[in-house]
Amino acid sequence: MGARQIYETLRDQIMARVYGTDGLLPSSRALADELGVSRSTVTVAYEQLAAEGFIEIRHGARPRVASAVVDRGRNRATSRPSTRNARLSKFGGRLREGPPGWTEPPRALVANFRYGDLAPSDFPLLAWKKAMVAAMTRKVDRLAYADPCGSLRLRSALQGYLWRSRSVRCDVDQIVVVNGSQQGLDICARLILDAGDRFVMEDPGYLMARYTFAATGAVAVPIPVDADGLDTERLATVEARLAYVTPSHQYPLGGVLPIGRRHQLLAWARKCDAYVIEDDYDSEYRYDTKPVPPLHALEDSDNVVYLGTVSKTLSPTLRIGYLVVPPGLRSMFAAAKQIMDRHTPLAEQDALASMLESGTYDSHVKRVRRRNAERQQALLDALGRRFGDRVRIDGTAAGLHIVAWFDDLPQEREEALIRMAWSKGVGVYPVSSLFDRLRTGRRPQPATVGLVMGYAALEPALIERGCKLLAQAVDELAVRRE
Amino acid sequence: MGARQIYETLRDQIMARVYGTDGLLPSSRALADELGVSRSTVTVAYEQLAAEGFIEIRHGARPRVASAVVDRGRNRATSRPSTRNARLSKFGGRLREGPPGWTEPPRALVANFRYGDLAPSDFPLLAWKKAMVAAMTRKVDRLAYADPCGSLRLRSALQGYLWRSRSVRCDVDQIVVVNGSQQGLDICARLILDAGDRFVMEDPGYLMARYTFAATGAVAVPIPVDADGLDTERLATVEARLAYVTPSHQYPLGGVLPIGRRHQLLAWARKCDAYVIEDDYDSEYRYDTKPVPPLHALEDSDNVVYLGTVSKTLSPTLRIGYLVVPPGLRSMFAAAKQIMDRHTPLAEQDALASMLESGTYDSHVKRVRRRNAERQQALLDALGRRFGDRVRIDGTAAGLHIVAWFDDLPQEREEALIRMAWSKGVGVYPVSSLFDRLRTGRRPQPATVGLVMGYAALEPALIERGCKLLAQAVDELAVRRE
Repeated sequence: MGARQIYETLRDQIMARVYGTDGLLPSSRALADELGVSRSTVTVAYEQLAAEGFIEIRHGARPRVASAVVDRGRNRATSRPSTRNARLSKFGGRLREGPPGWTEPPRALVANFRYGDLAPSDFPLLAWKKAMVAAMTRKVDRLAYADPCGSLRLRSALQGYLWRSRSVRCDVDQIVVVNGSQQGLDICARLILDAGDRFVMEDPGYLMARYTFAATGAVAVPIPVDADGLDTERLATVEARLAYVTPSHQYPLGGVLPIGRRHQLLAWARKCDAYVIEDDYDSEYRYDTKPVPPLHALEDSDNVVYLGTVSKTLSPTLRIGYLVVPPGLRSMFAAAKQIMDRHTPLAEQDALASMLESGTYDSHVKRVRRRNAERQQALLDALGRRFGDRVRIDGTAAGLHIVAWFDDLPQEREEALIRMAWSKGVGVYPVSSLFDRLRTGRRPQPATVGLVMGYAALEPALIERGCKLLAQAVDELAVRRE
Repeated sequence: MGARQIYETLRDQIMARVYGTDGLLPSSRALADELGVSRSTVTVAYEQLAAEGFIEIRHGARPRVASAVVDRGRNRATSRPSTRNARLSKFGGRLREGPPGWTEPPRALVANFRYGDLAPSDFPLLAWKKAMVAAMTRKVDRLAYADPCGSLRLRSALQGYLWRSRSVRCDVDQIVVVNGSQQGLDICARLILDAGDRFVMEDPGYLMARYTFAATGAVAVPIPVDADGLDTERLATVEARLAYVTPSHQYPLGGVLPIGRRHQLLAWARKCDAYVIEDDYDSEYRYDTKPVPPLHALEDSDNVVYLGTVSKTLSPTLRIGYLVVPPGLRSMFAAAKQIMDRHTPLAEQDALASMLESGTYDSHVKRVRRRNAERQQALLDALGRRFGDRVRIDGTAAGLHIVAWFDDLPQEREEALIRMAWSKGVGVYPVSSLFDRLRTGRRPQPATVGLVMGYAALEPALIERGCKLLAQAVDELAVRRE
């Protein structure tokens, strides 16, 4: 491994926030040992990173991720004035304390198991292009701001889709088209939460939802998740305004919330006059044979906001999602959406509507479901072959990711394993970062190393190669430890 | 005029919120008189509207816009539960008190002078389609969430455009791509304003900006506008966190803020540690020969957020705008944008970037500027021919609208004139609704009837026809008055 490859790997790691809050990198001696290269090779890489502003080197100390990089979570370090003195709103202040952060997808990797990314080869390019061209060419009387809730055509098409694919029955007027589920979360946060309110989060859970709700100044109440999803028994003593759940396929652990817990959750929401945000983010990908109907399809769903997206079926870059909101809140969601950005771009709405109407969307989903089932099987096979009983898998019933637990590796080894894997060209991501860090008075969760492994952007051959390299990383880690 | 036409006109008026907060329509006798038709013709139209849920008829009382229509600002009246009892955040509560409202563009009109709409024939369909197809076909490694600030390619292209067209010099990293200027306003509102803060608004001014800032719970400080835009002298005693201004072409009155006032505004912002939001919404359309540089191009612009959009040059349905933010706030805008919807759709960003790079965008702007200059001239000619000295025009130096003042018609006649114009097939809109209604202790502004007349969606022949019908409406109003 040469200096260039070390440089690229470290840069990608820095951008992917592999290093902890202290931002400390290994000393050049330790890293040279770890990688089995000469110390001067590491030094060259470190100097290049320092010259480009990624890290700060001080004599006698371990290199540290540059504060500008940490602050901005971006890959251009500049000498810009910091935001620390700018007078911001309380919302701005909260974002300053804990910005969500975004990083370029790393490029120097052999196999990147980052969750959320999709394979461009799965995208139905011809059908989408055709639908978009038709949408752009459609004759209209005038170009004008459109319905904040989304085009009637798309909402009608979604109504049919939700019914046939998810048993969700709703009025066209309950559907609000948004820019991906993220905007759906943000609208819910703004309409429901005030500073000081409480919201229930699955623990571990989806970080962006937590960020979004917490940005209002509301306080997270983390409720543990087991193999069956949210432990709804624990809600009994909780008072909150909102509960965010992923009942079809808990993110990240993959449990499917059983019907009893669903009713318990809905009863709790009614009792508290709280809203349940049901994020059905990857429900199109079910590989087992016992689908549970969404919360929204159960009994009285007046306290449920259902959230769907095409980010997992078409592309996260399109920014299209949809909410099914309680009838009584519809006008409020419309007003909020109008304030936020008037409406979602029309051409994409039209294109999606026509794909739903023609059945192209459904057959596309069927096709990518099959492909992703193959990818998942390839990943399970490769992990089984490389690790056998050393690895325990969670969440195979659905979705585009699994969690791989290394029960013989204690949590303290996680950072080293991830760094070792990256140095071999495998992007893996810790499940530990999805646990609530603020649960004080308990020992850190989880106890052992767990990796969230997304597979939707990788072909089976690369999945196999990635697992082989991951196995090498685990082996070397063990050797170095001895 | 038959019952059908009366029905359609009234329905469009209701949807366009022509009727005041009390929602009272004229009695059937009064309307029959006004339109010169039999009372039974009006009754048929009213009954049809009542049957469809648009109005409520009670014996002996004037018909009233149905509360469901008023509440929802939408054209499907239903028996849905109201939102009045739903538990909402304070933000939600404020939207419930004063939702912005959206209505379908009316269709039964001969000429609709609604501001903000564009002519589809002005849209560069071939160039845009080509750019979009190229963007959709572009090869990528994986489909993944992109930079919250917008693609580097588009920001680089915008940087060049802002410099060559607006003398705005900025770093690529200061540019944040948003979903139209509305999202730009919303990000500013959230990052800068807290409940109880104060923000300066031009009076009259842009309603959606006022809604957006007020939704945070901040309080508007309306500052009067004269022929030169915001009266910055009056800022001396004002303490606020933010000032929203349209210095290039005040909306709606059309004044261009002179350089002295610009410096005064910036000095005020520095003194208060406040931000100036410079909405350069229609700066591409300048018809005079003395452009004033944007605030952002003047001296130290660390307190200025510059806001641009393609909603007036390409289409409001695309939802693309851009901010130039102070360097110190850049990471905060990135974090907020990420929380709000991750990023603006990629294909549109790419397509706009390629049109900017190739010069297609600039030549398109040049072409539509010429067309809109012709439309403005057609409107000025027609108003001159029909009204002569009776009409006084404001705001011809730039933009896509003018204000036509009927100084011999007192404000009380406004609603009747607008209704009369609509009944003749001309959609006109009062300037009075853009004045701050909460300026207590003064008499209502303005004193006479003024109409905001947008012309960008109308061809010269229709502009001429619309003005002819408007003249008839004014004449009939005078006759009926006598």
